[in-house]
Amino acid sequence: MADWLTATYVVTCDERDVAARAAAIASEQSVECPLEAIGEQRILDEIVARVTSIAPAGAGRFRVEVAIAAQTIGTNPVQFINMVFGNASLWDDVQFAALEVPDNVLAMFPGPRHGIDGIRRLLDAPERPLTNAAMKPQGLHVPDLATMCRTFALAGVDIIKDDHGIDNQGYSPFVERVRACQAAIGEAVAATGKPALYAPNLIGTPRVLRERARIAREEGVRVVLVAPMLVGLPAFFDLVDEFPDFVYLAHPSFGGARHIAPELLFGRLLRLFGSDAVIFVNVGGRFGYTHETCAALAGGARAPWGRLRPALPVPAGGMRLERIEEILEFYGRDTMLLIGGNLLIDQAHVQERTREFVDRVLSAGVRS
Amino acid sequence: MADWLTATYVVTCDERDVAARAAAIASEQSVECPLEAIGEQRILDEIVARVTSIAPAGAGRFRVEVAIAAQTIGTNPVQFINMVFGNASLWDDVQFAALEVPDNVLAMFPGPRHGIDGIRRLLDAPERPLTNAAMKPQGLHVPDLATMCRTFALAGVDIIKDDHGIDNQGYSPFVERVRACQAAIGEAVAATGKPALYAPNLIGTPRVLRERARIAREEGVRVVLVAPMLVGLPAFFDLVDEFPDFVYLAHPSFGGARHIAPELLFGRLLRLFGSDAVIFVNVGGRFGYTHETCAALAGGARAPWGRLRPALPVPAGGMRLERIEEILEFYGRDTMLLIGGNLLIDQAHVQERTREFVDRVLSAGVRS
Repeated sequence: MADWLTATYVVTCDERDVAARAAAIASEQSVECPLEAIGEQRILDEIVARVTSIAPAGAGRFRVEVAIAAQTIGTNPVQFINMVFGNASLWDDVQFAALEVPDNVLAMFPGPRHGIDGIRRLLDAPERPLTNAAMKPQGLHVPDLATMCRTFALAGVDIIKDDHGIDNQGYSPFVERVRACQAAIGEAVAATGKPALYAPNLIGTPRVLRERARIAREEGVRVVLVAPMLVGLPAFFDLVDEFPDFVYLAHPSFGGARHIAPELLFGRLLRLFGSDAVIFVNVGGRFGYTHETCAALAGGARAPWGRLRPALPVPAGGMRLERIEEILEFYGRDTMLLIGGNLLIDQAHVQERTREFVDRVLSAGVRS
Repeated sequence: MADWLTATYVVTCDERDVAARAAAIASEQSVECPLEAIGEQRILDEIVARVTSIAPAGAGRFRVEVAIAAQTIGTNPVQFINMVFGNASLWDDVQFAALEVPDNVLAMFPGPRHGIDGIRRLLDAPERPLTNAAMKPQGLHVPDLATMCRTFALAGVDIIKDDHGIDNQGYSPFVERVRACQAAIGEAVAATGKPALYAPNLIGTPRVLRERARIAREEGVRVVLVAPMLVGLPAFFDLVDEFPDFVYLAHPSFGGARHIAPELLFGRLLRLFGSDAVIFVNVGGRFGYTHETCAALAGGARAPWGRLRPALPVPAGGMRLERIEEILEFYGRDTMLLIGGNLLIDQAHVQERTREFVDRVLSAGVRS
């Protein structure tokens, strides 16, 4: 059915109710009115969404597949989200779980402009796992952030990002910070001969995003951190389109994934909207994702999907040095490790801990 | 504490864990790193968020109040969301439930530009409850939509909106539709002498929103329908700022409210970002909100809040004619009733049913 998408929802309900729940989803995600309110046969045939399958998915849960007419979406990426999970997001018993998109609909999404290969080229690291560190905590003044940036780069980290709470606060204004951190990383790269990239956090309404992206570009920034759910998927889509030269590292903030399965939101939707690399909360960290969720999420980010480039999984959220080998064993080499606060817990030895981070990543035996 | 916000979260956990969960929220919503990774006393004193209260909230649930430093937000509305519910949105056991914002932070939000009074002025209806109907289903061609618009206006409805699934599809392109519906409603107003307004749906990335808003303004549109969570709160904020002459009717699509309490998201946040009127899913309709949730939501939209105008509650989501008196009894007169598919279920008598809708609203004895 090239002219229909398939959206899958996990519904928690009694078996006797599931057919009605499924029909309600199909109505809500298309015509949003009683069928008897539809006077035209064409609309019943071509526009109303259809339940195509209902299957058990564990105790009291069902996987419901709904075919949604591509016509109802047209070529608007925001309408795409509206039609796959607009009103149905308001039900507590419905989770949006999976998506199959025909090529003619997928064509409206250029997806990641660089993807895994592009990131590897920028870093001159064609095969090994990559490393990422976060400058923390917010509240530090600009010279301290620049020092931290230099320290991480001297220790060999590939991408050094702002913490996602760092914006344009009085203690670390955006322009001054980007300039100082770019200079600091430049000095480190000149000293080591190894590429390293600073990724400032872009946060704001669309006009602010655009203004900051321009500044970042002028300052020679190549990678930016953006939280797509926070700035809004639509604004993120426009940003990527207007500034395709940046590598986009997606942060999960405001991504409250209860209603959208994490593997779908972070593994698929953020890629669809143009993330080159996707930060997500890894199993065993500060958040409750399982091994299965994380594997599915990383798998989805990298799997062939139409003409979309693969996106780089970035497991994070409370990672510790001791776990590096385990994480790499789990995710393989097309992965970027992000370690945040754990690099900083011994304030006198940040460079040594960071060097250990980098060395352990470089020396881990990693499957391809 | 004028320089601190208070955010309240409902946490589902064992009593013995709640102090640790509360501390984790405070960390995640500010410095996002272990306290031992912070080398500067100023940051510990001024930047780290603080748990200010923990109280039982029913079996296995606790209300946790966290003070968040205004400094960490600055004057960026998107950073505001990031700091009140960014990473914490990723926990299944945490719901963002309430918010107290000091005046200096509230000052960055102009809020509704028209609010309840502005809507009443446009409609020349200073006191009575208002009425709203939706053109459904999507899939109808433009002449049929225009006919429906005229029918509803002739029957006396105040605001006639696109269904939220109507975008710019081949069957009802935006420009042609807006022009036809504006003309249709103009004819009806000329015939009845009673004001009525057509509200087209604006959906798209920020650039598309702006382009369509320009077209709508040129065509004389005064009210627009926008789903703020779908287009993104930040893009919505910019849109309201750039096109302050429109009345904004907020649609709940993609507002999956499990992690943000509905009364907070729809009653407060959408008002903060500039909605003049807020559509929400009423108790007893197609969605599962309770009377308590709905009362709190409508109360929040209308309550005094700094210098923000009150926003108009619009209960909806499967409302039927039989419920009009009950709904008005519950919400009082600063309310706009939205009835969708129920006006259309008898295709031969749409105008009569709509007239009944309007008459029942006008004749209901409503408290002020």
